[in-house]
Amino acid sequence: MKPSASDSDGRKITEKELIDVFSDVFRFSKKPILSGSEFDDCAAVRFSFFTSVLGSDSDNADLLRSTSLLFSTDTVHRKSDFPPSMSPWQIGWMSAAVNLSDIAGMGGKPVAFLVSIGLSADFSLNDARELALGINDCVSMFGAEVIGGDTEFHDELTITGTVIGVSENKHVLYRNGAKPGDLLCVTGFAGSAGVALDLLLNDPSFQKAGVSINSVSPAFLKNLTEPYPRVFEGRALSKTGAVTSMMDTSDGLAASVHELSERSCVGFVVDAEKVPTEGEAFQILSQVCPTADSAKQALFEKALYTGGDYELLFTVSPDKLKAVEAAFEQLNQQLNQQLSRQSNQKDGGKAFKSGKSPSRFTVIGEATKDKSVLLKTESKGQIQLISLLKKGYDQFDK
Amino acid sequence: MKPSASDSDGRKITEKELIDVFSDVFRFSKKPILSGSEFDDCAAVRFSFFTSVLGSDSDNADLLRSTSLLFSTDTVHRKSDFPPSMSPWQIGWMSAAVNLSDIAGMGGKPVAFLVSIGLSADFSLNDARELALGINDCVSMFGAEVIGGDTEFHDELTITGTVIGVSENKHVLYRNGAKPGDLLCVTGFAGSAGVALDLLLNDPSFQKAGVSINSVSPAFLKNLTEPYPRVFEGRALSKTGAVTSMMDTSDGLAASVHELSERSCVGFVVDAEKVPTEGEAFQILSQVCPTADSAKQALFEKALYTGGDYELLFTVSPDKLKAVEAAFEQLNQQLNQQLSRQSNQKDGGKAFKSGKSPSRFTVIGEATKDKSVLLKTESKGQIQLISLLKKGYDQFDK
Repeated sequence: MKPSASDSDGRKITEKELIDVFSDVFRFSKKPILSGSEFDDCAAVRFSFFTSVLGSDSDNADLLRSTSLLFSTDTVHRKSDFPPSMSPWQIGWMSAAVNLSDIAGMGGKPVAFLVSIGLSADFSLNDARELALGINDCVSMFGAEVIGGDTEFHDELTITGTVIGVSENKHVLYRNGAKPGDLLCVTGFAGSAGVALDLLLNDPSFQKAGVSINSVSPAFLKNLTEPYPRVFEGRALSKTGAVTSMMDTSDGLAASVHELSERSCVGFVVDAEKVPTEGEAFQILSQVCPTADSAKQALFEKALYTGGDYELLFTVSPDKLKAVEAAFEQLNQQLNQQLSRQSNQKDGGKAFKSGKSPSRFTVIGEATKDKSVLLKTESKGQIQLISLLKKGYDQFDK
Repeated sequence: MKPSASDSDGRKITEKELIDVFSDVFRFSKKPILSGSEFDDCAAVRFSFFTSVLGSDSDNADLLRSTSLLFSTDTVHRKSDFPPSMSPWQIGWMSAAVNLSDIAGMGGKPVAFLVSIGLSADFSLNDARELALGINDCVSMFGAEVIGGDTEFHDELTITGTVIGVSENKHVLYRNGAKPGDLLCVTGFAGSAGVALDLLLNDPSFQKAGVSINSVSPAFLKNLTEPYPRVFEGRALSKTGAVTSMMDTSDGLAASVHELSERSCVGFVVDAEKVPTEGEAFQILSQVCPTADSAKQALFEKALYTGGDYELLFTVSPDKLKAVEAAFEQLNQQLNQQLSRQSNQKDGGKAFKSGKSPSRFTVIGEATKDKSVLLKTESKGQIQLISLLKKGYDQFDK
């Protein structure tokens, strides 16, 4: 009835072996956590553990009173989330990253992570260890710890993460705060994950043009397989006081703009020319499309309508844009220092090397009083405003 | 590639419909929760929301300082957790109950619940609503609220819950506090879920004896299909100050006694005659077994070595047993009052009616300095001490 996982030598894996592997990887400092759930029914954690990441005196009563916890849960599984050729480490990384991105989307700091792992029969004990390392590397890179979990076998590899973050109440950012006149901004680049997915799925047009995963940089594929949650950017943005609304773009850029529009009761005009795309994505599509214009258009479609980019979409009062620019400048200095420290560690720095650094953001449009979501394009000197389609990643459509 | 769920009329279910159904069921009071995750990337919750269930002045600085949060996550899925004939409501109830039982095992109060639902193609929109109602009824019966979640389609129905509970630091109970001389106690009855599972799986010996689910009381089957987490009992026990260690028995009684032994570095002598079993379980097995003695033995095996009972196993200083007795007396008074209130509600009181009330506990043994876990039996006036087998529910063994 149940799948039963075997190790590489054909020997059946026992529950104890698996728990030992996970416990070994998910070691955490025991001090603030009264108990980790590998020993008891639950992990028990003092409030001060959550506030310790916010202030030096984590037990301060005012800090405790003015703090919120952020919670999110997300499931990823083999058929819908892991393209072929993803390694166990990458699968682990991704299952943590998609959850951390939700904390980033509200400007919080991730603190703790729980993970329920339904392992499939094709995983060896070493694969399980690599998976756990991927989770742990991602969680710890962004300052959080794995505090609990559950493990079992499942026909289809299925991983559910739950992340707990923290933020001062006043710094939590929602989707409903955009005002007419606010500038619409997005971090990083859009569309790269969508192009990488076509590559990994060996799309016929790519096959025909002789473009394969071997002809692109490894860093480019990581845009899809090692999503980099914008935790540091989200936190820096929330502390500027300049941002009026925010969310992550995991369902795609166009879908996210529509979501901000609906929640904030404003419209948007998105400037097509300003949507940031990566040079390598354009080069790849240039080999597949007949003209440079059609390659540009194809990449633009990916940028707007495919998911998997995990960037942050946010709005800023125009008079406070300078504060956001300053925050990114400061953040890049910090990240560079961190990068040089982490590159000395075994698994550290992987994501930083994947081309996600330096951090950047681009103003791509403006919020309007009129509630339509429009796309501004220019062709032969003629400016056109057309409706931005409300479509994006929808797991239910597949 | 993906399963696509259809409604009863064959029409494909859209994501929006499903989210609307879940949002409608998982309504919650918005006051203390800044945002629920159906609108934003995360649910944002103030600390005072968690402490409000502990004291009237939930914003009290000392209360905040002296409080711990409890976290646990558990996945249940079709093949390993839902016997045939379980209704969508029961599946929902169970997926919440197994998580709440972990909070109970540490003496905490459940406060918030997140749920990730991987719906399979055999579920209609109405089934999905019933599933959500089952989750919500269980969570709200024990004083908690659904604050966030995730939904998608999955080949196999898969539900991961994450529960957040709260407790004063001093009242959290662990597995490692038992001392030699402490009395070993268990709530409720053991083995009923195991007998109910054989019935639901239509075990050949039952078939042969003409015993089926139709020949037993509906309440008896609910021992398996509507597990009743001992949240109220766990909390009452933690507040007595008399309990030295505790855990739930979800993996079986014998396995749990061994676990307390290992964590607490003590041994136990379990008195076979004292292990509490239900009259109806014995009646059922009497129809299957050739003699009363063999029926008694068969039930005893179920009581020790099968999972699914979700009772609490705990140790008490012998001089403080009276405090525990008094706590159960008080609890039963409270539960009876609650029952009469809830029986007026639509779905309320279901579990109370399933024979889980009144609350009870039984002293079944004693902790010893010697670390062996022994079973004391008496046959024809001869007392025997044999090793209690370390076996129980192991999903990996199936």
